[in-house]
Amino acid sequence: MKFEEAYRWLLDYSKTTALYESVMGLLHWDLRTCLPPRGHAHRSEQIAEMTALVYRRATDPRLGEMLAEAQAAKNRFSDFSDEAVNLREWRRNFDRAVRIPQKLAVELAKAASEGQFAWQEARRENNWESFRPYLERILALKRQEGEALSTGGKEVYDALIDDFEQGETAAGIESLFTELEAATFKLLEKIEAAPRKPDPGVLRGDCPALAQQTFIREVIGALGYDFDAGRLDLSAHPFTSGIGPGDVRITTRLDPDSFVMGLFSSIHETGHALYEHGLPPEHRGTPCGSPVSMAIHESQSRIWENMVGKSPGFWNHFYPTACSHFPWLNKTGRDEFLFAVNEVRRSPIRTEADEVTYNLHIIMRFKLERMLIGGELQAADLPQAWNSFMDRYFHIQPQSFSEGVLQDIHWSSGAFGYFPSYALGNMYAARFYAKAQEELGNLEQMFSAGEFSPLLDWLRKNVHSRGSRLLARDLVKAACGEELNADSLVSYLEAKYEAAYGLR
Amino acid sequence: MKFEEAYRWLLDYSKTTALYESVMGLLHWDLRTCLPPRGHAHRSEQIAEMTALVYRRATDPRLGEMLAEAQAAKNRFSDFSDEAVNLREWRRNFDRAVRIPQKLAVELAKAASEGQFAWQEARRENNWESFRPYLERILALKRQEGEALSTGGKEVYDALIDDFEQGETAAGIESLFTELEAATFKLLEKIEAAPRKPDPGVLRGDCPALAQQTFIREVIGALGYDFDAGRLDLSAHPFTSGIGPGDVRITTRLDPDSFVMGLFSSIHETGHALYEHGLPPEHRGTPCGSPVSMAIHESQSRIWENMVGKSPGFWNHFYPTACSHFPWLNKTGRDEFLFAVNEVRRSPIRTEADEVTYNLHIIMRFKLERMLIGGELQAADLPQAWNSFMDRYFHIQPQSFSEGVLQDIHWSSGAFGYFPSYALGNMYAARFYAKAQEELGNLEQMFSAGEFSPLLDWLRKNVHSRGSRLLARDLVKAACGEELNADSLVSYLEAKYEAAYGLR
Repeated sequence: MKFEEAYRWLLDYSKTTALYESVMGLLHWDLRTCLPPRGHAHRSEQIAEMTALVYRRATDPRLGEMLAEAQAAKNRFSDFSDEAVNLREWRRNFDRAVRIPQKLAVELAKAASEGQFAWQEARRENNWESFRPYLERILALKRQEGEALSTGGKEVYDALIDDFEQGETAAGIESLFTELEAATFKLLEKIEAAPRKPDPGVLRGDCPALAQQTFIREVIGALGYDFDAGRLDLSAHPFTSGIGPGDVRITTRLDPDSFVMGLFSSIHETGHALYEHGLPPEHRGTPCGSPVSMAIHESQSRIWENMVGKSPGFWNHFYPTACSHFPWLNKTGRDEFLFAVNEVRRSPIRTEADEVTYNLHIIMRFKLERMLIGGELQAADLPQAWNSFMDRYFHIQPQSFSEGVLQDIHWSSGAFGYFPSYALGNMYAARFYAKAQEELGNLEQMFSAGEFSPLLDWLRKNVHSRGSRLLARDLVKAACGEELNADSLVSYLEAKYEAAYGLR
Repeated sequence: MKFEEAYRWLLDYSKTTALYESVMGLLHWDLRTCLPPRGHAHRSEQIAEMTALVYRRATDPRLGEMLAEAQAAKNRFSDFSDEAVNLREWRRNFDRAVRIPQKLAVELAKAASEGQFAWQEARRENNWESFRPYLERILALKRQEGEALSTGGKEVYDALIDDFEQGETAAGIESLFTELEAATFKLLEKIEAAPRKPDPGVLRGDCPALAQQTFIREVIGALGYDFDAGRLDLSAHPFTSGIGPGDVRITTRLDPDSFVMGLFSSIHETGHALYEHGLPPEHRGTPCGSPVSMAIHESQSRIWENMVGKSPGFWNHFYPTACSHFPWLNKTGRDEFLFAVNEVRRSPIRTEADEVTYNLHIIMRFKLERMLIGGELQAADLPQAWNSFMDRYFHIQPQSFSEGVLQDIHWSSGAFGYFPSYALGNMYAARFYAKAQEELGNLEQMFSAGEFSPLLDWLRKNVHSRGSRLLARDLVKAACGEELNADSLVSYLEAKYEAAYGLR
């Protein structure tokens, strides 16, 4: 068989699989936004059937044969050509898929689905013991999966991380996190000793849903979100769904007493959506046109949520609009409002944490899940280990399991190895942002003038348009000329928060 | 192979195919309610891929082998057992599917998709000539399809009707329609000669969208629509989407100057939804749990829209509620309002026609499409033939192609043989309604008291729960003890409209 023939077959195959996956994307979006309560059982069946279909395609021996045919000719193109990139990723995905026995794949899907249900109920009821057996089961299965995927003496946990961050290892992450942890505590202690304190009360006032939605639409439209290629809906947990080119949907949730939660979660999801919208359309359905990693995805949401959305420049531009929607804001100044938005405080819940303490939540989860997968920590001992971290990092004793070890969905669904991506995302975000600023000049001045497209264009060119062409660490090197390290994030946090708290 | 083994395989196969079809149901629902404009191209690809998947399953030789295995043992169960019904329908569907060459199936899908686009534009632009070549193409392909499906000297058109109304023929429909046409003209002329005329102006007044939606929800909830197992959304053309058990969604559209369009279209779709909700859940995904025909489906929507929703009893109950939502109604009496709702008038648009003249719109389309498929009428001559019918039946010359031959989507999508189902549906509706009344007593009295469940329960038991167990004509015989004829519909129309117009 000629290379062209095999490669063409693989392209078609990849695009068709991506179409099925995008159909699943709609099934999930609808599940979380529109599905009537009595439709859940049928939706589970639909998702299970489509999952099985995609699994069969991912492990089809014919795919392996075609890959072998095409790769026999791989000297015909350069390392970062479309062909090389796609073949590299197809090969990697196929090899991973076939290493997991079908029986294990089915059991994992079942345990993940049951685990999420059990977790929801356990969190609602504050009942750790009801959840424990589900966690034990999924942990055992994930260890088996990790062992099946592991190659050559690496940590089992590495194989799970690799699912979200290709090429990343626990050891590599640990070295970044050690640096970040030390710098964070140093900064946090300075902040806590500062005489100035924000008043979170200035963020609260009457926020009718319609006014919030109008304001959110104005803001994210100005940032570059294209409503002709997406939607904004409500859901219990905000998320982004990239169903296809021209169809990237975001959701938010609204607090009637404060618009900031809905606004920042919308800006966060907009960052994810801008990445999806910016993937090269001619490569859709293939690795060249796909997001490269969870951390890079997260870096895009964090840039827009934190570095743009919580900056003085942004609020120079948007504070008057905010006041027009929420007149009670007029009694507060922009500076006082912004200080409250950027309040730093040790708190028990990850998703409500500020930029500085957020990474500590991630670091403790990274350490815990590494021990869980490695077998040094048993599920039964997790609550105690959790609370010990909470005490050490935050000086907090969680008031309940729901506020503690049961707060996140991730482990219940088997997503071990996912948490590090959040803090890595913050590091990538700071690195990209610093480089964009270096190349484009004063970004805050642009935000003050309502100009957000220079930053978006920079991200389009340097990050989005690259798809999976370069793995995350290579991408940051290509875009910023430097290896990933914690410095950019630490410098960014120090500069921002020392200024906010009057420490420099 | 044992019968049980083959039958179990077929059951699983049928349910899996139905799951894929229900996924397509969601793709279509979302297309018409939520999809952002730039998402259309990708949605077309998703639908095409899922269509191809379902087509491959429908024609898979393995399905044929299993059917043969199972049917070799068919003496083991009675004629209307689950097994007999499912095997009958699976066999019929497989035989039809494999008779259509794959090339033709692909061309038909493409022509239908392109035809709908061309029709939309042609209707908007009032441009018949731009649409004509698309119609010619689809007509040629549908003739080929009909020829491929035809068995033993029947009309080609019969094979197309059979797709919507299994077992029905053009000759059988013609004989019903001849009777209905004559009686309709007789009644229509009497109505037109009546001295009393309704005042359609009483239906118009300020109707805020929120008040309309609230009223609609109250009404359809009272009729039995379960909002925990469905949703009400807005779309350009109202429709019902039975995505799965526990998930049957309806849509409506609202006129700011009159709530009646939105209300009656919602009640119509509720009728479809009640049928879907009433299918036996233990047989979902198999013929025993599927709607039997378009006409039976339509009969359910017409019963609730016309026989219930436009009846005096219904408005005895709901007029006060309507007045509370739309206070301007207070200046009109219930009788005057109801008379306007039931106005009979020759008019050019099918979807806006009253109960009496509606069937004439169907009869002329039946005659036209029969000639088109039979080759006695060429597409190029269709506008002239259309206008000649409009003149003869309605004394109307359409003011434009859009108001005339281009008003309906059906032919552009290849749905030849579909139109008769609407008028057959009216006949079935009248037959079921008369029988329910005979068995339950005075239904109008129940409606006056807000009691709609006796009628719904009767329909559940006699129609919905039967799925496809009996073909439509056998179903009406089993439920009503009588062959289908036009009498019930004619008697119903005469009694209702002679009373409304003071003719008896």
